[in-house]
Amino acid sequence: MINVAVMGFGTVGSGVVELMATNHEKIAASAAAEIAVKYILDVRDFPDSPFADLVIHDFSIIENDPDVSIVVETIGGTGVALDFTRRALLAGKNVVTSNKELVAAHGHELLSIARERNLNYLFEASVGGGIPILRPISQCLAANEIEEIYGILNGTTNYILTRMYEGGAKFDDALREAQAKGYAEANPAADIEGRDTCRKICILSDLAFGRQIDPEQVPTRGITEVDAKDVAILAPARAVIKLIGRAVRTGKNCAAICVEPFVVMPTNQLNTVRDVFNGIVVRGNATGDTMFYGRGAGKLPTASAVVADVIDAAKHFRARKYVDWGDGGKDAVTPHELLKSRWYVRGGAEIADSMKLAEGAYITDGKYDAAEMEALAGPGAVKYRVLD
Amino acid sequence: MINVAVMGFGTVGSGVVELMATNHEKIAASAAAEIAVKYILDVRDFPDSPFADLVIHDFSIIENDPDVSIVVETIGGTGVALDFTRRALLAGKNVVTSNKELVAAHGHELLSIARERNLNYLFEASVGGGIPILRPISQCLAANEIEEIYGILNGTTNYILTRMYEGGAKFDDALREAQAKGYAEANPAADIEGRDTCRKICILSDLAFGRQIDPEQVPTRGITEVDAKDVAILAPARAVIKLIGRAVRTGKNCAAICVEPFVVMPTNQLNTVRDVFNGIVVRGNATGDTMFYGRGAGKLPTASAVVADVIDAAKHFRARKYVDWGDGGKDAVTPHELLKSRWYVRGGAEIADSMKLAEGAYITDGKYDAAEMEALAGPGAVKYRVLD
Repeated sequence: MINVAVMGFGTVGSGVVELMATNHEKIAASAAAEIAVKYILDVRDFPDSPFADLVIHDFSIIENDPDVSIVVETIGGTGVALDFTRRALLAGKNVVTSNKELVAAHGHELLSIARERNLNYLFEASVGGGIPILRPISQCLAANEIEEIYGILNGTTNYILTRMYEGGAKFDDALREAQAKGYAEANPAADIEGRDTCRKICILSDLAFGRQIDPEQVPTRGITEVDAKDVAILAPARAVIKLIGRAVRTGKNCAAICVEPFVVMPTNQLNTVRDVFNGIVVRGNATGDTMFYGRGAGKLPTASAVVADVIDAAKHFRARKYVDWGDGGKDAVTPHELLKSRWYVRGGAEIADSMKLAEGAYITDGKYDAAEMEALAGPGAVKYRVLD
Repeated sequence: MINVAVMGFGTVGSGVVELMATNHEKIAASAAAEIAVKYILDVRDFPDSPFADLVIHDFSIIENDPDVSIVVETIGGTGVALDFTRRALLAGKNVVTSNKELVAAHGHELLSIARERNLNYLFEASVGGGIPILRPISQCLAANEIEEIYGILNGTTNYILTRMYEGGAKFDDALREAQAKGYAEANPAADIEGRDTCRKICILSDLAFGRQIDPEQVPTRGITEVDAKDVAILAPARAVIKLIGRAVRTGKNCAAICVEPFVVMPTNQLNTVRDVFNGIVVRGNATGDTMFYGRGAGKLPTASAVVADVIDAAKHFRARKYVDWGDGGKDAVTPHELLKSRWYVRGGAEIADSMKLAEGAYITDGKYDAAEMEALAGPGAVKYRVLD
């Protein structure tokens, strides 16, 4: 019997406990062991929950119980979650989390503690929700040098942009619709300003390129300024504006990283990733492009990824997973502005050999870096990079 | 130092040896160990190859060398490949393969031998080439009951169908074009008659539903009868005919399985999987739909998957991977005909509440099983199931 403690009984945490009950038989078969939730740690009580009698309020009970070998952290944030994760690892427990903010900010430190103690710190759920992505990168593509990773990493913004494209909605209206449907929070800043996407592309970069990237190092632009006019101009070409997190290898252990709206052409697999779905493209030097698609958020999809990590931890008490990356630093990131691409331009100077979409709106034929584009189009123009 | 023997120096085998040289540093870092090719077993000599001095012709050298811990089988077929795989496992060596025919026919037996000896028998490359798919199913989706798997599993047929759709080509012309480009073999029967797809959906079913499926149990229809007329009728609705391998869970450890052309609507992620690319949708009861996309064949993509398995085997000498499934039997498969779906029909009786595409050509609104469809449309009609 393997005993698990779940810390944080919110959406994801309660999903984990429910999924372990619903799919109990399958999970036991996958792990080749019985796995049970022994404690649920939360500041609240849940008298009406069928799991009410598992609820505790004191972390030290978990910390001091030698029967607990795996701790699930679904608290979120970098406050108490960081403290409890550190202490759980120091107490010899494997830790599984969906907390992207914590992994993006403190992954290197926590992985180092885990490595020293031969424990697992796993976080498949932190990127792409239910989509298998971190394990495929670190295991299935282990024979590849990763050249580039980019993706639609945030369901809220993708829903808003889908409504603008398919429903002709303006940004503000699409945001209100997303809030009404529960896809966007009352304070949607972290999503629409790109910070959530930024944390996720940082974690993907950490894993693919081997250095801890601080989210502060990544130029991040959200979708608040995306104009329905540009969405409409691009629509006849079936080109779609998507918020993309992107990391391109530029040398050994370094990458050019950005978060910003891109124009995604119909030739690109991300073009048809709609609604709250996520899609992530990984380019390896042997595999070429692979793409991973699915629900990037939601209670059960995210819980599914957390429980898969619990199963993996249960199977690897002796043989630690080699998920790891090195320390960060200024030289881990090179300027994304220097990368060349095609561009969508509106309201700037006319650019030779471009594909005209409407009066004053073009997609360039040649590839330019950001400074070249600024010089060509002029400073006042709307400009988005194009993904073919 | 971990020593590997590569058996079969054809396209994939030579790709494995080359990739291990090219990405040597990355592979050593991923495996946390040096991995070297000690022998290349082939009936031929390769005097001009930089690896000529590794070539041997006698399997017993590998079998009797205690320094060889991992054997790569890229011979293909079920003759000598089966014999050597059995003997390698019995000699205590981990085996990695890209041989879908062997895994589909003898997976249960070989996995049983591996299990008894605490060895790994791994075959990520046997389905989807360079696309991570088997490991995501068995690990990342381990907390899910898999409800359905379907996909475009063969690049040759997808190239032909793409040319018919985008280029308006007839089947015979598209096939010749594929042969000229090296995408189809001189004898393309295994591809165009669906047998290659059948082996792959069998392996996916084995893994997802836990029983060995004999390819003979799967009703298999290729693309040789796909008429350019139907492709053209469907095109304005952006609906595409694709050869699909499909397995739907119908009970504990059993599934309805088929290989046949389906009409894939633009709402489905497989609709835009073009050319020689593959795409596989996996539906779990917690994650919902996830999709995996990439190059399903080719020297380096396939080698990438083989070498990833070599790395995984190297990391799991003590802790065996839980890739496994049970014995087969008639009750492992239920009739696919009983599944209900929408249908595309041409040349049959008119069907109420259908979407008319052209004179005499419809997509039905309601869902029908095969017998109901036969009764409604009449026996002479062209009929394809629809994937929304």
